[in-house]
Amino acid sequence: MDNPLVYIVMGSKSDLPVMKAAAEILEEFGIPFDLSIMSAHRTPYKMIECAENARARGVKAIIAGAGGAAHLPGVFAAFTTLPVIGVPIKSSISIDGWDSILSILQMPGGIPVATVALDGAKNAGLLAVRIIAAFDKNIEQKLAEFHRKMGENVEKTDKEVKEKGYKNV
Amino acid sequence: MDNPLVYIVMGSKSDLPVMKAAAEILEEFGIPFDLSIMSAHRTPYKMIECAENARARGVKAIIAGAGGAAHLPGVFAAFTTLPVIGVPIKSSISIDGWDSILSILQMPGGIPVATVALDGAKNAGLLAVRIIAAFDKNIEQKLAEFHRKMGENVEKTDKEVKEKGYKNV
Amino acid sequence: MDNPLVYIVMGSKSDLPVMKAAAEILEEFGIPFDLSIMSAHRTPYKMIECAENARARGVKAIIAGAGGAAHLPGVFAAFTTLPVIGVPIKSSISIDGWDSILSILQMPGGIPVATVALDGAKNAGLLAVRIIAAFDKNIEQKLAEFHRKMGENVEKTDKEVKEKGYKNV
Amino acid sequence: MDNPLVYIVMGSKSDLPVMKAAAEILEEFGIPFDLSIMSAHRTPYKMIECAENARARGVKAIIAGAGGAAHLPGVFAAFTTLPVIGVPIKSSISIDGWDSILSILQMPGGIPVATVALDGAKNAGLLAVRIIAAFDKNIEQKLAEFHRKMGENVEKTDKEVKEKGYKNV
Amino acid sequence: MDNPLVYIVMGSKSDLPVMKAAAEILEEFGIPFDLSIMSAHRTPYKMIECAENARARGVKAIIAGAGGAAHLPGVFAAFTTLPVIGVPIKSSISIDGWDSILSILQMPGGIPVATVALDGAKNAGLLAVRIIAAFDKNIEQKLAEFHRKMGENVEKTDKEVKEKGYKNV
Amino acid sequence: MDNPLVYIVMGSKSDLPVMKAAAEILEEFGIPFDLSIMSAHRTPYKMIECAENARARGVKAIIAGAGGAAHLPGVFAAFTTLPVIGVPIKSSISIDGWDSILSILQMPGGIPVATVALDGAKNAGLLAVRIIAAFDKNIEQKLAEFHRKMGENVEKTDKEVKEKGYKNV
Amino acid sequence: MDNPLVYIVMGSKSDLPVMKAAAEILEEFGIPFDLSIMSAHRTPYKMIECAENARARGVKAIIAGAGGAAHLPGVFAAFTTLPVIGVPIKSSISIDGWDSILSILQMPGGIPVATVALDGAKNAGLLAVRIIAAFDKNIEQKLAEFHRKMGENVEKTDKEVKEKGYKNV
Amino acid sequence: MDNPLVYIVMGSKSDLPVMKAAAEILEEFGIPFDLSIMSAHRTPYKMIECAENARARGVKAIIAGAGGAAHLPGVFAAFTTLPVIGVPIKSSISIDGWDSILSILQMPGGIPVATVALDGAKNAGLLAVRIIAAFDKNIEQKLAEFHRKMGENVEKTDKEVKEKGYKNV
Repeated sequence: MDNPLVYIVMGSKSDLPVMKAAAEILEEFGIPFDLSIMSAHRTPYKMIECAENARARGVKAIIAGAGGAAHLPGVFAAFTTLPVIGVPIKSSISIDGWDSILSILQMPGGIPVATVALDGAKNAGLLAVRIIAAFDKNIEQKLAEFHRKMGENVEKTDKEVKEKGYKNV
Repeated sequence: MDNPLVYIVMGSKSDLPVMKAAAEILEEFGIPFDLSIMSAHRTPYKMIECAENARARGVKAIIAGAGGAAHLPGVFAAFTTLPVIGVPIKSSISIDGWDSILSILQMPGGIPVATVALDGAKNAGLLAVRIIAAFDKNIEQKLAEFHRKMGENVEKTDKEVKEKGYKNV
Repeated sequence: MDNPLVYIVMGSKSDLPVMKAAAEILEEFGIPFDLSIMSAHRTPYKMIECAENARARGVKAIIAGAGGAAHLPGVFAAFTTLPVIGVPIKSSISIDGWDSILSILQMPGGIPVATVALDGAKNAGLLAVRIIAAFDKNIEQKLAEFHRKMGENVEKTDKEVKEKGYKNV
Repeated sequence: MDNPLVYIVMGSKSDLPVMKAAAEILEEFGIPFDLSIMSAHRTPYKMIECAENARARGVKAIIAGAGGAAHLPGVFAAFTTLPVIGVPIKSSISIDGWDSILSILQMPGGIPVATVALDGAKNAGLLAVRIIAAFDKNIEQKLAEFHRKMGENVEKTDKEVKEKGYKNV
Repeated sequence: MDNPLVYIVMGSKSDLPVMKAAAEILEEFGIPFDLSIMSAHRTPYKMIECAENARARGVKAIIAGAGGAAHLPGVFAAFTTLPVIGVPIKSSISIDGWDSILSILQMPGGIPVATVALDGAKNAGLLAVRIIAAFDKNIEQKLAEFHRKMGENVEKTDKEVKEKGYKNV
Repeated sequence: MDNPLVYIVMGSKSDLPVMKAAAEILEEFGIPFDLSIMSAHRTPYKMIECAENARARGVKAIIAGAGGAAHLPGVFAAFTTLPVIGVPIKSSISIDGWDSILSILQMPGGIPVATVALDGAKNAGLLAVRIIAAFDKNIEQKLAEFHRKMGENVEKTDKEVKEKGYKNV
Repeated sequence: MDNPLVYIVMGSKSDLPVMKAAAEILEEFGIPFDLSIMSAHRTPYKMIECAENARARGVKAIIAGAGGAAHLPGVFAAFTTLPVIGVPIKSSISIDGWDSILSILQMPGGIPVATVALDGAKNAGLLAVRIIAAFDKNIEQKLAEFHRKMGENVEKTDKEVKEKGYKNV
Repeated sequence: MDNPLVYIVMGSKSDLPVMKAAAEILEEFGIPFDLSIMSAHRTPYKMIECAENARARGVKAIIAGAGGAAHLPGVFAAFTTLPVIGVPIKSSISIDGWDSILSILQMPGGIPVATVALDGAKNAGLLAVRIIAAFDKNIEQKLAEFHRKMGENVEKTDKEVKEKGYKNV
């Protein structure tokens, strides 16, 4: 198998139902990736090892998901120079997601995290695709095609609504 | 000087005007402490060293202050078994303090942080005093006396307001 | 039975499903505790009696849970010098937990409450364990072991996800 | 001097600039009142004594102001059957007033507090006037006259704006 | 039947499941009341008629419930000098109750509304009872008895939890 | 002078510094308007009279500004069939504007208010212009020209920044 | 069929269950309309074409619904001079609707959007009716009749509650 | 001059004091960039032209800042496949920054925006640097050096605080 270009990490198996949307996007674009469970609080040394070696292993972007006082994306970013994409997760311990969002988004100057929407793992995957596409014509073409199809799907539903009538959709 | 019983740590010199209230309380109670600037993001290894050795050096409680995506208290707590008291700071980068509060308070199950009010460094100091006082009769007596004086001060202002009239205070 | 080292108090039987997580942690560490229903508003004298005598009975920490305008932890703290750990509960009367959090966390200077996450009774138990462990080598060793096992569990799920594939977990 | 019909209580002298608006309204209506500084946390026994005896002394309503984790109105209400009007204060320790509002407003079923707007001491005074006016024709006539004058003042500014033009007011 | 001492009004039949808790309290205390559906927006003239005549009909307090942009309590209060108790309702159109709370609580100076907790109709009833009890010894005795029983109930559950053990309740 | 096509109303003279931006837009487009101070709570009958007669006087849109528990736009809308544009004002009594926004925006089904941004009186004016322009070619042409100039101004500042360099603007 | 006077647009078929309430109101008033699915992000050119030509096709008002970072109403408004009514939708990706509300309501000065309540498509329809009614006596009469019936319905439920008793409704 | 690798765009000159921090970071790393004022609402065609051609001109990342209903980053992202970094700005029209954050962060699935902290333009610059550094060893080395210096600065302040004493800093 190819070396991973993206690492997808999350603090708990319970984050997987949200985070797998990132993996599915990467598969759709044929971008090799690695998916791991690790915790900034419970397995900090494993996380540090992973973060410090990612670049040397050829990784181009990190996707890190966490909920509640979500420290994983920011602490991971402290141990690497790679772009880290943070996915705030509305987990069972979260206050409607506000804690997840703010503890990922509001990083102090110096260590950025690229935050996406609450439970927005699909867009985290697409952000990693955009980063790689900026340097890879082949991926960029797939991405342009992906955009074209999104547009087509909207037009298809529009046509469907108009044909059936809005009451019958 | 005596070995410190409390460590006060914070991420930046700009946190000092808030955090010194904790130091002042410890001085008032004659509890030796150490005060350091360290960052979970910018000097993570120094922080880990400090956290891992605190217990062996005789420390009984940690007071950690941070603002914005405030990871210091929670990440510090991951590397020690000592009680960690978190002070959310309404720093210039904070959204009215909500990010500071939520990223300290909402720790996932397993690694607790004892959170006090926004900018509540005085109460963080008093919480450390309460923890030590639970096992030290001498400090407990000082604390009971401290409470008695707080009550007296309230009664003094009440008397003052009644004597001068509420319009003249 | 041993004298209790921790009091767990809450305002209503409906808080029990959340608060029992604190009791379970204390049992796991073999720390004797007492669990009572009392209310700052409906049985205030009972609460005062309990708070004023806790220290003399050998108690080292209080865990107090409440929801809505959650006054129990703060008012309890006014009648004792022991460290009081507050658990904000997302009860049926609460506005998504914000009232519970703020009326426990934002104590004025002088009377601290060690606040944990919303419904964070497990961490309240662990905070009491940390306080006791700071002065008790035996408990501290159990706590270090507890941490080690938490890490192992994370690694086990990581291995499971990698072996089965993220789609099959 | 007449026996007070209203008690105005607050936790700290720093609440006075807000709370005096309640006193001024009562003076305007000629309703005798008492104003005291007392704290649910720092002088709890004084507060209990005051609350338990208020009714026997002829008091008809309590106005209690507090900020942050504002327990005074609710705890006062636990020790009396009189109507307690709570004034949330946006004090320096408050998170934009949200903590003050929620810890007064969200009282659990059984012990009500009549909450007014943030820093709304004037309306607290007027609410006490309405309560007394419900049983006192004389006060009610003054209140009706007060309403009539409020309306006149609005019409006066309307006339002023129209005469001078909106650009010159 | 006796003349009503309290009016309970609400904007829609869908508010009834919440608001009936106020009616039940008044029945428990034997206080006669009237319950009506009326709207500040859809039947404004009926509301004005009701508000303007309430005092002359012997009413002592109004309880008004509404959700969303909840104008009924405040607008009702503009047409009467009686104390108006507002119940913010978390209706289906409400943003988690915040709109209901703020549009009742934050009345401008001059026209107060005594706001209770979100969906706090029981406490609205008890606040009306307290207002009447301040001027009626008989009701006050019932209220003191009501408080005594609330305390007893708390103690009963405490005893139950202790006898059965917290795991078996 | 021409009959007014728009009424601008507000609850207090203190709203004028915000609300005059609506008047200035209407002047810029040559649309005659009337500006009044009136209150849903303090001069309710005047407000009702104004609302009920607006249509017969040729008015096409209402602009109503208010802060705190901002009832004026919604209650005005209950007495007219004209479109009512609500301007939430961040007045001194407001909680950062949230109360103003929610008590105008969250109108129940049946009585709509067209809400604009906090302190957004300029856009309230422009919304009234759009409504009139939908039926008046002349005003529409002015509006298209207004849009063209806004674009030109953005391009001018862009040119200025590029010529001077971003450090010297 | 008649030329549409109103365009109803939305970003996704999943918005239809909310948005159809606007269509139903327009049907009730006999106002011809067009309903389409289009996206500011996925079919931007189609949206621009629709916005730029709406006026020439005789349209008088736009109703645009969107959720999350809801850009459709504001971006649509940038390409037309017609009044645009924005419906914030509490979609599955939304944070309790706050993102939907704020990204529609808080438009910068120059490009207004007439925002209605969260999921308030019925009121969006009624706002379009009010705009048309301001210039069309026939529609205005239907609207006045609609208001009369709303009032009657409130009175019917009031009568029902009084006849059956509040416990039996 | 070199072809720009990064575009910095913002809706108004008033955003420049915040946004220039991004430009300064890019200058510090020697990364050529272009800075423009453009608006999704007032100069939409210019923005579309800029977005559609950015990739062909060799740009690798976009930094877009906006406040209030901040549509610029998301709409820009709809017209390019490049990674777009969004900077929420706490402008004068913003509600404490919440509108800016949510209307950038909460993009629907399909079109991601990499959001940084409120007013976090420095981190937006560093995120662009990380993206380029992932594919450019030279820039990566500068970034590692930048991190090393940040750490040194923290240690310097720590030493300073310890030498002077926390009271004298």
